[in-house]
Amino acid sequence: MNSESLLNPNERIDQLATNDVKIIQSRDVFSYSVDAVLLSRFPNLPKRGQIVDLCSGNGAVGLFASKSTNASIVEIEIQERLADMAMRSVQLNGLEQQVRVIQDDLAKTLDHLNPSSTDLIFCNPPYFKLDEHSRINESEHYLLARHELATNLDDICRISQQLLKTNGHLAMVHRPDRFFEIIQTMTQYNLVPKRIQFVYPKADRDANILLIDAIKDGKAGGEKFLPPLILHKPDGSYTDEVHHIYYG
Amino acid sequence: MNSESLLNPNERIDQLATNDVKIIQSRDVFSYSVDAVLLSRFPNLPKRGQIVDLCSGNGAVGLFASKSTNASIVEIEIQERLADMAMRSVQLNGLEQQVRVIQDDLAKTLDHLNPSSTDLIFCNPPYFKLDEHSRINESEHYLLARHELATNLDDICRISQQLLKTNGHLAMVHRPDRFFEIIQTMTQYNLVPKRIQFVYPKADRDANILLIDAIKDGKAGGEKFLPPLILHKPDGSYTDEVHHIYYG
Repeated sequence: MNSESLLNPNERIDQLATNDVKIIQSRDVFSYSVDAVLLSRFPNLPKRGQIVDLCSGNGAVGLFASKSTNASIVEIEIQERLADMAMRSVQLNGLEQQVRVIQDDLAKTLDHLNPSSTDLIFCNPPYFKLDEHSRINESEHYLLARHELATNLDDICRISQQLLKTNGHLAMVHRPDRFFEIIQTMTQYNLVPKRIQFVYPKADRDANILLIDAIKDGKAGGEKFLPPLILHKPDGSYTDEVHHIYYG
Repeated sequence: MNSESLLNPNERIDQLATNDVKIIQSRDVFSYSVDAVLLSRFPNLPKRGQIVDLCSGNGAVGLFASKSTNASIVEIEIQERLADMAMRSVQLNGLEQQVRVIQDDLAKTLDHLNPSSTDLIFCNPPYFKLDEHSRINESEHYLLARHELATNLDDICRISQQLLKTNGHLAMVHRPDRFFEIIQTMTQYNLVPKRIQFVYPKADRDANILLIDAIKDGKAGGEKFLPPLILHKPDGSYTDEVHHIYYG
């Protein structure tokens, strides 16, 4: 496959040094960032079965994970532009047998997939609540990716509860300042958070990223808080741990 | 005051290099540990007003804090032996004007103190739920200090809600594996957790201590997760941060 023929104007191909999957990106829309990279590595991946990425964007999380599992992977993305980029990235990597992209509202996931069919759900959702500031100075692509306009925590947890097998996992990345609301919403849908990791921009700064692994119909209590992940050294360069994730 | 005359058999005097307060301790009962030291330093101390230490044990948390505030400090401890040690530590440090020890069940705190009278509550409560293993191989002193036999999270949060002024703070140290239950119980009594810090035995280990600062009748959302506190280097010695806390 000629890579160039799969690219539209203003698009580029990005790749991690530690993962040979290629991702089509564009400045016009939301690109993957460290959140997606960390999310793709956070849960234990099932060896087979089905993985679903809700709010998949340009497909980065599922594509990264594809290299470490034989499970079939379904990406759900509401934005046509992003879903189209994800489909072309699937072709670019020759992953048509493993990865499928569905362009639809995640609330309609059960129109496409069976209930209780899924071993693992990834979700890198919009982080911000809708408020009076939400519509300022953002393109529609960024607005939908960042703000709870087309979906929200309640939708995501309701669909996840329906889609997961018993003891299936929901792995979510989000912001620490909404942690309690996330826990409450998950718990309401009997998704029991079990492994949590906080990510800090530097060792002396408050956490700015949160990773949560919840189990459908799990037993409450005994939650684990994993070792802290620090992104940057005091001089701003990556810590050894993050350097290893990006460069091996 | 002759220190020796205040000591009973099997008792000793402990002191941090960074705090000139002296604490009477004994192997026969529960001694203060790093949990108490960290708790005493965690919240912003009110300059004046009233601080209450629920489950004060031998009084270490309130005594440590006394050096950094002019607030009056009330220690509530159910165990006679520990309350007696705390009273003698108050004398030993000549703090009778600032620190008062009440030996009683914390559920009866409002028999001694006015409702809505308190700016800050410290609490280093029993960490373990009562279960079939609880009574094995422990003296009564350790049993009461470690297990929810004489009190529990619900009692502590109910009393704290009554005792605190609006916007007063409850600072609690506990175990991460009960975090969600703690959050739920605090929230039920409208004590809104705002600042949380996880403490890790080493940089690559799960958190084993949790510090929470909750505000009475605070606004929900926007919780902050403070920089991780790592206790030990890989070789087992204290990290620079903890060395500084203990030795300056």
